[in-house]
Order: sequence, then C-alpha cells, then structure tokens
Amino acid sequence: MSIDQFAKDFTAAVREDRADDYTAMWADDIVSCEPGEGPMSRCEGREQLQQKHDWWNANAEVHSFECAGPYVVGDQFAVNYSMDVTMDGERNEFHETAIYTVRDGKIAEERFFYPTGE
Amino acid sequence: MSIDQFAKDFTAAVREDRADDYTAMWADDIVSCEPGEGPMSRCEGREQLQQKHDWWNANAEVHSFECAGPYVVGDQFAVNYSMDVTMDGERNEFHETAIYTVRDGKIAEERFFYPTGE
Repeated sequence: MSIDQFAKDFTAAVREDRADDYTAMWADDIVSCEPGEGPMSRCEGREQLQQKHDWWNANAEVHSFECAGPYVVGDQFAVNYSMDVTMDGERNEFHETAIYTVRDGKIAEERFFYPTGE
Repeated sequence: MSIDQFAKDFTAAVREDRADDYTAMWADDIVSCEPGEGPMSRCEGREQLQQKHDWWNANAEVHSFECAGPYVVGDQFAVNYSMDVTMDGERNEFHETAIYTVRDGKIAEERFFYPTGE
C-alpha cells in the first residue's frame, strides 16, 4: 500500500473514531511523543500507548473533533487536529499538529506539536 | 543553548526575514523536504537550499506572512506558516506546517507539510 493510501486510511479511522482500525496500524514498538516532561510525554510500545488512550477516554469529554489532512512528505504525514474538550471541569478549544512516521507499513512514531503556555 | 531558545531564535529570524541569521543556523548538510517529486521537493546541503530560497525570492510576491510557534517536542520543533502570495500571476492564501530537526545545535532537516490538491 502506498503511504498516501495508508495515511488516508489511518486519518479516516481516527476521524471516525474506529479505534480497532487505527490501533491495528500501530507498530508494536510505536513511540508516541508530546511536549514536556510529564509521565505521558513519551510512551513506548502498544501497551503504554493504549493506557494513554484509556486515560484520555476516561478524562476528556470531547464536544467536537476535526481533522485536516493527511499531508504526506516522504515517510511521514501530518494531520492537524482541532477539538473542543472539557477536562477537569474546564472547556477549551485545542489545536495540534501530529506528525506520523511510517516504517514497514505501520505507524512507528507519532509526535504531537502544540503550544504549552511556556 | 536549549532547543527551546534555539527554536525561538530561529523562528524570530524567519519571522523578521533576517536571512543571514536563520541561514547561519542551518547545518552545512541540511536536508529540506516538501511534498511531491518536483526538482525542489528535496534539497540536500546549504548550496541547494540557498538556490531554492533564491528561486522563491525571485518568483514569489509575499503580501503577508505569519508564523505561529515554535512548538518543541524532543529534538524537533514545529512552526505554522500562513502567507498571502502571488506566484505566476495568481494570488493565494497558503498554510503549511514546518517541522525542524535539530542536531548538534543546527537545523539538520526541515520538512514542510501542506495540501497538494491531489
């Protein structure tokens, strides 16, 4: 499968919240990185990343969610996410860019870029 | 210098169009990647990248230019660019995300993600 088609399939699965489909596209040793030094700023492997998703699903109330992309360059693609989320009783709009790295037909790395207020 | 400060300095130089300052932050073997398979979709080395900049400066009339960021994650940072540009007689708004990879205190790679209309 071309990376263009892979990127479209992955983004469609995320957009439609088909977790079984997009998690099947993760490499077993996927690395997931966010800004900062928090406990979930770096997850290594499918199990840690699943725990992060479980934490998010238990703590975030998502009122709306939009994806723009994917935009492919070489072995990577970008997706821009916009969401309206309530966490800890506070409702905010949130924008981030995810960069996904594809190796051997799987997502080997995902990295999320967004302002941290620093 | 921390990557946070490096990223801020680089982004400020780009925002203020201080070419001598931001090109001094490139590694000599910098790689610059864009979508597609065109002649300038991959530049390797300072000389090729300078030629790309010269081509852009000769062909693009930039009416406005905005940067959002930088957003640092690990050894990389993102900058979101928005610009209003006339090229080949056609005026368009253009948005892209640049991901910069820092190694040994220099920009080792820059990669630009944007829609290609495909």
